[in-house]
Amino acid sequence: MKGLVYGGPGQRSWTDVPDPEVRDPRDAIIRVDAVTICGTDLHILGGDVPTVDSGRVLGHEAVGTVVETGSGVSGLQAGDRVLASCISACGICAYCRQGAYGQCLGGGGWILGHLVDGVQSEHARIPFADLSTYKLPEQVGDEAAVLVADILPTAYEVGVLNGQVKPGDTVVIVGAGPIGLAAVVAARLYSPAHIVAVDKAESRLQAAKMFGADTTITAGTQDIGEAVRAMTGGLGAHVVIEAVGTPETFELCTTLVRPGGRVANIGVHGQSATLHLEDLWIRDITITTGLVDTFSTPRLLDMLIAGQFDLGHMITHRFGLDEFMHAYDVFADPAHSGALKVLLTR
Amino acid sequence: MKGLVYGGPGQRSWTDVPDPEVRDPRDAIIRVDAVTICGTDLHILGGDVPTVDSGRVLGHEAVGTVVETGSGVSGLQAGDRVLASCISACGICAYCRQGAYGQCLGGGGWILGHLVDGVQSEHARIPFADLSTYKLPEQVGDEAAVLVADILPTAYEVGVLNGQVKPGDTVVIVGAGPIGLAAVVAARLYSPAHIVAVDKAESRLQAAKMFGADTTITAGTQDIGEAVRAMTGGLGAHVVIEAVGTPETFELCTTLVRPGGRVANIGVHGQSATLHLEDLWIRDITITTGLVDTFSTPRLLDMLIAGQFDLGHMITHRFGLDEFMHAYDVFADPAHSGALKVLLTR
Amino acid sequence: MKGLVYGGPGQRSWTDVPDPEVRDPRDAIIRVDAVTICGTDLHILGGDVPTVDSGRVLGHEAVGTVVETGSGVSGLQAGDRVLASCISACGICAYCRQGAYGQCLGGGGWILGHLVDGVQSEHARIPFADLSTYKLPEQVGDEAAVLVADILPTAYEVGVLNGQVKPGDTVVIVGAGPIGLAAVVAARLYSPAHIVAVDKAESRLQAAKMFGADTTITAGTQDIGEAVRAMTGGLGAHVVIEAVGTPETFELCTTLVRPGGRVANIGVHGQSATLHLEDLWIRDITITTGLVDTFSTPRLLDMLIAGQFDLGHMITHRFGLDEFMHAYDVFADPAHSGALKVLLTR
Amino acid sequence: MKGLVYGGPGQRSWTDVPDPEVRDPRDAIIRVDAVTICGTDLHILGGDVPTVDSGRVLGHEAVGTVVETGSGVSGLQAGDRVLASCISACGICAYCRQGAYGQCLGGGGWILGHLVDGVQSEHARIPFADLSTYKLPEQVGDEAAVLVADILPTAYEVGVLNGQVKPGDTVVIVGAGPIGLAAVVAARLYSPAHIVAVDKAESRLQAAKMFGADTTITAGTQDIGEAVRAMTGGLGAHVVIEAVGTPETFELCTTLVRPGGRVANIGVHGQSATLHLEDLWIRDITITTGLVDTFSTPRLLDMLIAGQFDLGHMITHRFGLDEFMHAYDVFADPAHSGALKVLLTR
Repeated sequence: MKGLVYGGPGQRSWTDVPDPEVRDPRDAIIRVDAVTICGTDLHILGGDVPTVDSGRVLGHEAVGTVVETGSGVSGLQAGDRVLASCISACGICAYCRQGAYGQCLGGGGWILGHLVDGVQSEHARIPFADLSTYKLPEQVGDEAAVLVADILPTAYEVGVLNGQVKPGDTVVIVGAGPIGLAAVVAARLYSPAHIVAVDKAESRLQAAKMFGADTTITAGTQDIGEAVRAMTGGLGAHVVIEAVGTPETFELCTTLVRPGGRVANIGVHGQSATLHLEDLWIRDITITTGLVDTFSTPRLLDMLIAGQFDLGHMITHRFGLDEFMHAYDVFADPAHSGALKVLLTR
Repeated sequence: MKGLVYGGPGQRSWTDVPDPEVRDPRDAIIRVDAVTICGTDLHILGGDVPTVDSGRVLGHEAVGTVVETGSGVSGLQAGDRVLASCISACGICAYCRQGAYGQCLGGGGWILGHLVDGVQSEHARIPFADLSTYKLPEQVGDEAAVLVADILPTAYEVGVLNGQVKPGDTVVIVGAGPIGLAAVVAARLYSPAHIVAVDKAESRLQAAKMFGADTTITAGTQDIGEAVRAMTGGLGAHVVIEAVGTPETFELCTTLVRPGGRVANIGVHGQSATLHLEDLWIRDITITTGLVDTFSTPRLLDMLIAGQFDLGHMITHRFGLDEFMHAYDVFADPAHSGALKVLLTR
Repeated sequence: MKGLVYGGPGQRSWTDVPDPEVRDPRDAIIRVDAVTICGTDLHILGGDVPTVDSGRVLGHEAVGTVVETGSGVSGLQAGDRVLASCISACGICAYCRQGAYGQCLGGGGWILGHLVDGVQSEHARIPFADLSTYKLPEQVGDEAAVLVADILPTAYEVGVLNGQVKPGDTVVIVGAGPIGLAAVVAARLYSPAHIVAVDKAESRLQAAKMFGADTTITAGTQDIGEAVRAMTGGLGAHVVIEAVGTPETFELCTTLVRPGGRVANIGVHGQSATLHLEDLWIRDITITTGLVDTFSTPRLLDMLIAGQFDLGHMITHRFGLDEFMHAYDVFADPAHSGALKVLLTR
Repeated sequence: MKGLVYGGPGQRSWTDVPDPEVRDPRDAIIRVDAVTICGTDLHILGGDVPTVDSGRVLGHEAVGTVVETGSGVSGLQAGDRVLASCISACGICAYCRQGAYGQCLGGGGWILGHLVDGVQSEHARIPFADLSTYKLPEQVGDEAAVLVADILPTAYEVGVLNGQVKPGDTVVIVGAGPIGLAAVVAARLYSPAHIVAVDKAESRLQAAKMFGADTTITAGTQDIGEAVRAMTGGLGAHVVIEAVGTPETFELCTTLVRPGGRVANIGVHGQSATLHLEDLWIRDITITTGLVDTFSTPRLLDMLIAGQFDLGHMITHRFGLDEFMHAYDVFADPAHSGALKVLLTR
């Protein structure tokens, strides 16, 4: 079959790879029906994730159909339509027992397209299939579902729940790319009084408004701190969500938060940042980091079914699987393509 | 009367100052019976706290006797023996209504010996006296009580509660000075399985053992990270409490914590630190900072009465008020004096 | 001046009463501009609240204008337009320090129209005025504001927060009178997937739909338990809010909740209920009761200003103060009058 | 092999039963090395648990040695010494994913000695063995370990964690049988200021003192409410733990709790109780019920290893497996035998 193979920094190809096989009783094999590309995949191609070996099939967000299950899989059958989550979970280790699947010590965590072959391919092996896939009801389409593989639970768990967004809060989201936009959607679930999106690109700020931000600030043009203080009686935001992944944006976040507030980092960082403890030590600030655990995935799917999300406009481009090389080009150049998320279907 | 007056960086004197008077209906005047010196006072003398004006009487930890109350004070009478807390609270602003007295917007917070004259003097004015003092029952002695003015609630709220210490946890406390030792005592209330104290000074590590640490690590001699990983199955500590206030110790803390764990900063910092987000972004770490709010003070006093603390050995040196200049010398040179806390009494 | 005076069970009159005066430095006197009647007032008139003495002016929900303040009031001035909350708070006792103002041990709590004269009168004395009133900005009208005196914070704190409503939950609210309808509005802030309102009156169920319930069940006609199980995969609701106050409705609530779920009681009860521990002991149920604390009032007002609530249709009837006797008649007979909340204005 | 077989109400026999076999890939077979009897077993024999069929082997608390594992068991091998927990967990259902194993919807929960044959036998089948057993290190003896199968996690999770015991609290534990005594031990982990044990039997109150209660009240002789109010400034206890299981004791608990406090029910109830909502509706009370989930079992075992518990004196009588009939007699008659927990070993 074909798969999108990482060939070392800067190298990728859509090429022949061996068909996946059940190796462990808890594995399932799925046919990939819809799959997307994550900003993290670009980080891998940029050489920022050295734990990815050359030859690895990338991808960790897909909708597929089960074609085979190992003898230890109890909840799936061939023919089941499933969401393949970015996180796999052994379900037995101390972290899994606490729902911290992202930190699984038993061979799971973020492994797809990272430590084992991923889902940017015609078929894929899903380890620990009972805990790593979610059966999809008919009424949830592939486009809606695939966003629940990673960005929606990440925005919800790592951004909104870690940030402890509460009704009436002012929430600032720095970065209005796909994950920042998902954070706008997820934050709305807790009815903050104000959601403020910050980005350099006007097009992304417009998208933020469409997804529910009520205020936008253009980075580079406006004084962000002054703008946030002006709308919060000088105090700053209750919650600031970092959705970029640079030292500058992280440091900005720590200046926008009020005493007693929270900075929730979602961004994938390749460098260290400066933490101004000489200012912050006395200000009762909480800073959180995190990889998604996907404990919220069943609930998010229920909410999707109940019509509580409208992520439709997140997918801006659609391709066939055999257009994977081009889809990467489009996704990697949002300034020109305007891409948010790109979808590839069989 | 006499008071310990800050005269600018490096300058202090025990000298004549005006007697304090009721200026606001919510003020009380106390006669200072017992008072101590805080590490923060040394920071002020070092010039690290530019918000302290020259001429300010220092001090924010005392036991005293009420001699006069303003017309708006409802719960105190002349003759009452009280703890004068390091934090004053207007009780009305948005922060006070949440118990975040340390962040009071109504003129309170940490003001004693900082923005208004403090308690290192024969008498002192206590603003917002109803919420800033605590009546002491007879059975609580001055020595025990004075430690509840600042270091015990700080260790408890900013260290142990922010750190969310739980039964069975491994807790590492970096720094075994007075505040770190108080953190050892406070952490024990939650029955962690292991309390590990880290310091350079063997004498302080011995004190840590006396106060309840079950393991000590000598900084500079042992590989701290290796030692912590060895006792935690390679994972790191559940909670790490920073009780020093330097970039190096803070950065150390972020390497000692396990995925999903917490770093609670208590240290007073004068410089920024490096936050290694390139490692931490994926590790589900929570970092907290904080000034004490003293919401726990009534409860800590109840626990003191119930005999749940034994902080007796924390006070290593005792002086009369007129020995204040010498007491500072002793406190400022713990390497030679072995001082933990010094007490000055009338 | 005139006031609505309780004359013992079944007895009320709009009659002359002495003008209120400042008795304590923390008092304020307000001119009542808008006031409403609470279901609790009917309970008092029914003789269910024996702590109310004959001769008491009733009422605990008003908007007014400050006309005089005691010497210990720091945040109010004559002319300020304020919300007079149903809860007064000394701000000093152990409960107030935790924000549990409803349980104030220092002379506050629910005292207005209960232990001291209330606000159903031309002027009123407000004890502990700094903590018992909230300045209103111009853009908040009297009609919107007066609902924040009691029913909105009660629904939010005692119903939604105690019930720990979460995004994606199924929430059943038993009783669609004013407080149940306010619970519908308040629950929506947490984006439950389904809000189910239960009542006998179709008109109230229609109101529930207008305020945001997505499903209604007619008590007496439908099998409520079966209906709730049918929409929850047989498990029951995550949260059930009791907003009636009878043994039958409370017992119903305990049968509608899923294992691990919560029953939040808002109803005012005059009789005991049966708790089926033989079924419930094994089901991980949490039951909460509560008087509102109003700690959320400032936040709810901010949300009102931000346009997050639309309670407009809650006030169904409007009267002048001198029509108080008639307004009670209308409010006490909702089956005929269709009254939800009635408003009396100067 | 031999097993203790339930033969209908009042009927039990130590008799021949078929050897257990692996029926599901996730099963393990253990040789029972040490096993105990639970109060719940007496309830079953009393006919109070109609879901137990005649012919069932009882028992849900054991230490054993793995002799065989199904093909889907990944973490156990023949020869492993394990704790067999009272709760089995599929690990996949919505409840298990939240750590609510006791409410497992996938065939687990409390099934041993209830819905499937239990561990009061020479060998036993343990379903979902990876999640239902815990490997024991050498330093933990059988006697200590077997108490972690049920009563310690039950006391900790259902009593202390549900009750939210905090440092400085006054905790009243009603019932000083094995589970009440375990609650005393578990409550101490949170350093309450006062632990008060209530029971009719002086011998049990003495045991409570030995396990850490600092005050005891003899039911039937002393006025319990008055005694509790006297030691709490008239307010009542912060937390009351019901560890008996009768309507009277439950109702007592609701009178002993202070406004804002919590009643945590551990008792197994066969009848309904009266809930005095006419008093409680206004008092901010939280009542919880629960079956243990055993999410805390790994942590409790770590704490046992760290020496944080001393449950040694809980086991008062020891027998061989072939003395099972006599052991039941002794356990069922504590008034004469003084039995707390009885241990049967191979």
